[in-house]
Amino acid sequence: MAVGKLVLLRHGESVWNAENLFTGWVDVPLSEKGVREAQRGGVLLREANLLPEVVHTSLLRRAISTANLALDAADRHWIPVKRDWRLNERHYGALQGKNKKQTLEEFGEEQFMLWRRSYDTPPPPIEPGTEFSQDADPRYAGLGPDLPLTECLLDVVKRMIPYWESSIVPDLREGRTVLVAAHGNSLRALVKHLDGISDEAIAGLNIPTGIPLRYDLDEDLRPITPGGTYLDPDAAADAIKAVANQGR
Amino acid sequence: MAVGKLVLLRHGESVWNAENLFTGWVDVPLSEKGVREAQRGGVLLREANLLPEVVHTSLLRRAISTANLALDAADRHWIPVKRDWRLNERHYGALQGKNKKQTLEEFGEEQFMLWRRSYDTPPPPIEPGTEFSQDADPRYAGLGPDLPLTECLLDVVKRMIPYWESSIVPDLREGRTVLVAAHGNSLRALVKHLDGISDEAIAGLNIPTGIPLRYDLDEDLRPITPGGTYLDPDAAADAIKAVANQGR
Repeated sequence: MAVGKLVLLRHGESVWNAENLFTGWVDVPLSEKGVREAQRGGVLLREANLLPEVVHTSLLRRAISTANLALDAADRHWIPVKRDWRLNERHYGALQGKNKKQTLEEFGEEQFMLWRRSYDTPPPPIEPGTEFSQDADPRYAGLGPDLPLTECLLDVVKRMIPYWESSIVPDLREGRTVLVAAHGNSLRALVKHLDGISDEAIAGLNIPTGIPLRYDLDEDLRPITPGGTYLDPDAAADAIKAVANQGR
Repeated sequence: MAVGKLVLLRHGESVWNAENLFTGWVDVPLSEKGVREAQRGGVLLREANLLPEVVHTSLLRRAISTANLALDAADRHWIPVKRDWRLNERHYGALQGKNKKQTLEEFGEEQFMLWRRSYDTPPPPIEPGTEFSQDADPRYAGLGPDLPLTECLLDVVKRMIPYWESSIVPDLREGRTVLVAAHGNSLRALVKHLDGISDEAIAGLNIPTGIPLRYDLDEDLRPITPGGTYLDPDAAADAIKAVANQGR
């Protein structure tokens, strides 16, 4: 059986994206703009006749709502759903809840970009029991020592790829069209793996919100078109520029 | 391990409830009132600290949206989701899409009430390929000859109880709090089974929209409080009266 199609969807704008705050694992809702982006993502799926047969989401509201809204708009609200913390956004450690611009000013360009874009340097860990920590959150109660206090992109790759292998690949091997509704960094981790992007080059890769990114894969799960194909390439190109300028 | 708590939630008002049309398997969205009902259902869950650990829904948008909205309001949007056609509303056959009041006038009180409330008399079957039939709907493609063309409540009991046994009971046996977001008649079928209501008496039982109904069950899965407990008993009593008067 041919490998199924893979569709990646970064959640629409959240209220903290709109306020330019580091979010990470803080469970903020979509903004009104984010709701519209998610719905438009679903319309793009429907118009492309790219109809998901199963959806995987993180445990965070902004990805879950994006999946719900997009699937409803594509008339695929009824498909099976799988959720896992391994699709969550990168944990931003002690930066969670902080303003990106203020952080840039306080710590300087070099440190700021190291935290945002270096592959293996995580921000300082979050203090357990503080406002934006997750240690008391019931959805992570089963994680034990796996619960991160901070993460770099390498950490995301390490926890994300086992889920890819164990849960997403089997759906693809069954020939299903798989939607993964997740986050900037969990999707960057996956794209890095799929496209074989180097630890250095991944720093320059941004994924826009709300625009489905389609991957057709060969039998070895290698992309037939490297980098995949955005369903709205022009909007994707514009949005990628905007993401790159965050914090400026 | 103690048996988990069971919570039944009938979807909020749909746009066809509001227009007084027979809906059945036609996949109409919630009305604005229905959205508010679903959100309030979630607030009731949160205020009662009755927090679902897994949700089961039908394949119909009005139940899926109700679950999504209620769980989001209860901060439980991240729990595992299971969906099955066996939780769908009763298939209303050739009555799907017809106005309840006009049907009452056309066919008379006796025939109307037979179709609405008799246990074992289904409406006439729907014609395949017509506007409100489901034979071309991809979500039911795997059903083959199980796809109903009409159903009485007995038919719903017959297809619903196997799902109860195979999928909901195991979650309860694991001690989980289980939310079932479904429909007037699939929930009546379940309540009939749980409370041992006779084929005759079930005709008089109505379940209001949007008000969680809690069942605590003993080791034999018999309700400790027969009929369960509505989280807002006064609103439930008012709503039950209104349902009984539909079509008048």
